Amino acid sequence: MSIALTPEPPYYAVIFTSIRKEDSTFYDETAAKMEELVLKQPGYLGHEHAREDIGITVSYWASLQAIKDWKDQTDHQMAQNKGKSDWYRHYKIRICKVEKEYGM
Amino acid sequence: MSIALTPEPPYYAVIFTSIRKEDSTFYDETAAKMEELVLKQPGYLGHEHAREDIGITVSYWASLQAIKDWKDQTDHQMAQNKGKSDWYRHYKIRICKVEKEYGM
Repeated sequence: MSIALTPEPPYYAVIFTSIRKEDSTFYDETAAKMEELVLKQPGYLGHEHAREDIGITVSYWASLQAIKDWKDQTDHQMAQNKGKSDWYRHYKIRICKVEKEYGM
Repeated sequence: MSIALTPEPPYYAVIFTSIRKEDSTFYDETAAKMEELVLKQPGYLGHEHAREDIGITVSYWASLQAIKDWKDQTDHQMAQNKGKSDWYRHYKIRICKVEKEYGM
């Protein structure tokens, strides 16, 4: 996992913050499958992830439509349902427009 | 650390992604001090943090001006300089407008 190489703003970010349940049956397999599938998704620009007490995944997208299309993607829909029923105690999703970026 | 309780959008997010160096002299003390100070900062709405291979801190703000004021805050300026010189190998800061939020 490294810092995502994103283009000049504006572009979009989805901040997904979650608290897991103890049950993690099929979680790792599904996460690996989603990481593979998202690479083929139009408008996907990269993502960053870390988990301690809470998990934070930030994915970057070219447009709001690209975010919607990934949300609606069939395998991802199944993963989302499994997340809601089995894996996550709480989660929050924030859809953002990245207006400025800098760093070293 | 829990999921931040943020108001109805729109509001702002600062996504700070970093890769640390081995040297972490004064890092924990400074981080604790910043966590204490930011609570008093006008327009601060909360933050979320996790670190594995990379660290991700997302802080939430009422306005772009509030983000700028915290960036310019004197103690925080010193912490930022120390971060650049001693603690971080790479980092990226993205300033975002949160347009939509949902979850469970």
